[in-house]
Amino acid sequence: MTEKGSGPVARTVLQQCLQARLQVKPAEENSEAQFVQIDRGMVIYICFFRGATDDILPKMVSTLLNVRLCESDSGKMVSVLELPGSLLIVPQATLGGKAKGRAMQYHNNISKEDGLRLYGAFVSLCEKELAAAASAAASEVTVKHGTYGNRQVLKLDTNGPYTHLMEF
Amino acid sequence: MTEKGSGPVARTVLQQCLQARLQVKPAEENSEAQFVQIDRGMVIYICFFRGATDDILPKMVSTLLNVRLCESDSGKMVSVLELPGSLLIVPQATLGGKAKGRAMQYHNNISKEDGLRLYGAFVSLCEKELAAAASAAASEVTVKHGTYGNRQVLKLDTNGPYTHLMEF
Repeated sequence: MTEKGSGPVARTVLQQCLQARLQVKPAEENSEAQFVQIDRGMVIYICFFRGATDDILPKMVSTLLNVRLCESDSGKMVSVLELPGSLLIVPQATLGGKAKGRAMQYHNNISKEDGLRLYGAFVSLCEKELAAAASAAASEVTVKHGTYGNRQVLKLDTNGPYTHLMEF
Repeated sequence: MTEKGSGPVARTVLQQCLQARLQVKPAEENSEAQFVQIDRGMVIYICFFRGATDDILPKMVSTLLNVRLCESDSGKMVSVLELPGSLLIVPQATLGGKAKGRAMQYHNNISKEDGLRLYGAFVSLCEKELAAAASAAASEVTVKHGTYGNRQVLKLDTNGPYTHLMEF
């Protein structure tokens, strides 16, 4: 918030969960709402700023998946890959907001087109990394994600969210 | 995360909720766990850094309660006081974390004693502001909060968390 010029190009908020459920399609006249769900793991809320490019994605994903943000059953801090835990990725443009008077402004957020592309690439990279680690550990973890541009109707159950902020 | 020297003295993450429930006392041999709960309103995760003093609290509370972070029934962005919504305040020391290699470090966090005092004063001020606004509007809103230093076992139900970051 205090950065100028060379500020971050992406902002993430991380929360631990026992279970998290996200609506990916609202109910319509002839169809029920659709949801994705993970059990134990981490929710990644993500927002890209103007200037973000694909170049930052490998470092972002590697950091988010390997930094020790999660508490294991024995109370030790481990990474989500080590836990092993699932991922729920939630596009969250509001994270780019800056207060001006009583209004929030989002002038620094990436364009919708570029944001959609980067978000898709971020999800793919997470899927690849998690699949590689899970296959090595023979664990059943998964990556789920919200739809860019939609309302993110979320239900979260935690044993302590351990909320972290990481900017890139 | 990129600030040096004159960085923020407090970091908050704000999420909108339809209902939020927080454990304030874990189950013990002879007693069940105790919870506090709010319905529609805002969850404030809060972390103070070294250098934070009581002087910042009035501005923080005024900003958090008056900036338009919430979506009204008609889809208009309004403040939590205007909504009117309740508040769930969650002490969240992890928000002060900074990655060093694969470990998170919390060296910049305020001391436990000062943090406890500031957190208590922050909660009191929120209660006062919300009560004044609610009494004026004859609405039934409330302030609930977690216990500083405890594990924050949280359950959150949203219609879109609209996650925001605000630093002071």
